[in-house]
Amino acid sequence: MRKLVLIPDSFKGTMASWEICDILEGVVKSLDPACQVVKLPVADGGEGSVDAFLRAMGGRRVELRVKGPYFQEVPAFYGLVDGGRTAVVEMAACAGLPLVGEDKRPDQTTTYGVGQLIAHAVSQGARRVVLGLGGSATNDMGCGMAAALGVRFLDETGASFIPVGGNLSRIRRVELDGRLASLAQVELVAMCDIDNPLYGPRGAAHVFAPQKGADEALVRRLDEQLRLGSSAVERCLGQRLADAPGAGAAGGMGFGAAAFLGFRLQMGIETVLETVGFASQLQGADLVITGEGKLDSQSLRGKVVFGVAKAAKAAGVPVVALVGDIEDPIDAMYGQGLTAALSINRVAVPYSKAKLRAREDLARTMESLLRLLALGGL
Amino acid sequence: MRKLVLIPDSFKGTMASWEICDILEGVVKSLDPACQVVKLPVADGGEGSVDAFLRAMGGRRVELRVKGPYFQEVPAFYGLVDGGRTAVVEMAACAGLPLVGEDKRPDQTTTYGVGQLIAHAVSQGARRVVLGLGGSATNDMGCGMAAALGVRFLDETGASFIPVGGNLSRIRRVELDGRLASLAQVELVAMCDIDNPLYGPRGAAHVFAPQKGADEALVRRLDEQLRLGSSAVERCLGQRLADAPGAGAAGGMGFGAAAFLGFRLQMGIETVLETVGFASQLQGADLVITGEGKLDSQSLRGKVVFGVAKAAKAAGVPVVALVGDIEDPIDAMYGQGLTAALSINRVAVPYSKAKLRAREDLARTMESLLRLLALGGL
Repeated sequence: MRKLVLIPDSFKGTMASWEICDILEGVVKSLDPACQVVKLPVADGGEGSVDAFLRAMGGRRVELRVKGPYFQEVPAFYGLVDGGRTAVVEMAACAGLPLVGEDKRPDQTTTYGVGQLIAHAVSQGARRVVLGLGGSATNDMGCGMAAALGVRFLDETGASFIPVGGNLSRIRRVELDGRLASLAQVELVAMCDIDNPLYGPRGAAHVFAPQKGADEALVRRLDEQLRLGSSAVERCLGQRLADAPGAGAAGGMGFGAAAFLGFRLQMGIETVLETVGFASQLQGADLVITGEGKLDSQSLRGKVVFGVAKAAKAAGVPVVALVGDIEDPIDAMYGQGLTAALSINRVAVPYSKAKLRAREDLARTMESLLRLLALGGL
Repeated sequence: MRKLVLIPDSFKGTMASWEICDILEGVVKSLDPACQVVKLPVADGGEGSVDAFLRAMGGRRVELRVKGPYFQEVPAFYGLVDGGRTAVVEMAACAGLPLVGEDKRPDQTTTYGVGQLIAHAVSQGARRVVLGLGGSATNDMGCGMAAALGVRFLDETGASFIPVGGNLSRIRRVELDGRLASLAQVELVAMCDIDNPLYGPRGAAHVFAPQKGADEALVRRLDEQLRLGSSAVERCLGQRLADAPGAGAAGGMGFGAAAFLGFRLQMGIETVLETVGFASQLQGADLVITGEGKLDSQSLRGKVVFGVAKAAKAAGVPVVALVGDIEDPIDAMYGQGLTAALSINRVAVPYSKAKLRAREDLARTMESLLRLLALGGL
């Protein structure tokens, strides 16, 4: 094979996407040393997204101190890729769950630092910001981020404040005038791989706040705050966004990113394909290998394989998926450019055991795949 | 693909080899209707071996009444293939475990009917007899079969008798003079896929008699009978055979077939490859697909894949194995002609669940395989 493009999603809870790339590359190099291997680990917006882009594209990791979840100073980072034109910011870098440890108070945490990271990136000349939504410790509807970028939130007394999850209902007015002027020239894209609305039974609080430390009563209060706060915002801005798919991502940050700053919400894989220039990476490629933890034809699962297959089909490059579990039938995928999917499972054991052998199984399955392709001269 | 040869072993406890052939053929026909498919289900000597050969080669199933496990008359059968030149006899046809039902008395059962089947086949002109050892309800060291073919067993009083598992120690002399004369012109091959010796801790009684209904005391007695009976036979014939790999097959029938009749004991796959004329089936083939329930590089498991790969390698035809569990590493197999092995497991579940979806998983994996091969123009 002359050129092989690797663009796998992570196998959630088992292997990171960059790790999968490295394992697959190792097998290729041992069997076919002359093959050019392009590694494009897929980011999903959560923790590790900046690293995934840096590994895929090269670039610079920028480190700086910003406000953490409780407004304390924390060391954080973002990535500059594409010659500095694109900044990749993951909200988890300064507002992620690991940063609060056991001290989980999702009614008091802020995304303020995320706004600071974006402001810094724009000041460095970035003309595109890719914001990863995922792994948040917050439920502030993105208000902190917006405040750091100059958006003002006023309460009924006309006093300005920085809303957090527990007091969103205090918002009476939103002023966008003070928003960082240079943002107007920047393309803003938020990556989110969930389609939850802002509030309600499928909303940010009910679905995600428990893992951020909220008990049942707090979940109900956070949900109510999102509902009241967003109503005020929507009235003020004349825009209805709370039901948008992904509005509930990262404690309502999907809503805030769109409402206060004009971010476009899209799936991780679409953002990755755009950002890494997938179409040009495909030039001269004999094959694309993608994959993810579970594959089926219907749900959000399969989005990476589906997105990759569709894009590669347009370029006439075949696609093979290496997958944890395949929930057949996947015939619909075949019509969309997928040549074949192989499960990496090599023995009949439950997932708890399969995950322990996943790296070895992945490598062995890749070996089989390459040996099969070599049969046909690939 | 122009020509594809299917030669899988059964997936023990899950799918018969002919069933696997049919499933794989179905997938091929749906994706590549013009492809010539040769189906060679592998027999292992146990129940179903005659059918496997008849399906692989065509031929005639001969039905007749012979003595059953308790010397009663039972309907039985054997197969004539290769224009009647080769007879395939499975001992289970008239001495198999299902024939005794719950009435299990392995000290009293006989293989007499097996000898009758062989005699009939030879009388029909067969010049080669393939005898399948497996699935027995007997522990008679093959004495019944030998008696039916004219071998005489004498006790200390000089009286002739037909030994069964419980009275092998009565044997004092064996007379081969009366053996069916036409047997001398017949090639005799016994298929056995186990390598157990006749007696001792790994012998026929200790390992297999419990499933034939023997309790601990009876196991010990049967083992003792095998030891004493075979000693008398070996003294008389001047031949040591009790330790031969496979002597303990089918209640010691491996020993008796070799000692009394001159059968050659060999693995099922070797017998199949010889009998079906594998080398000529390979002519013009693009690919061989084999498989079995479990694959590793060491044990008897893997013998089918190993045997097929070796033979196909000599003919320069690539081999792919579709397997239940792959116990990596199998690198040694790659050196022996195996191109690749794919596990049919498509989700991480334990065997108890995997077996329920094995047919569907097999078909889907075959589909993936063919789609991959088509990438390279195969």
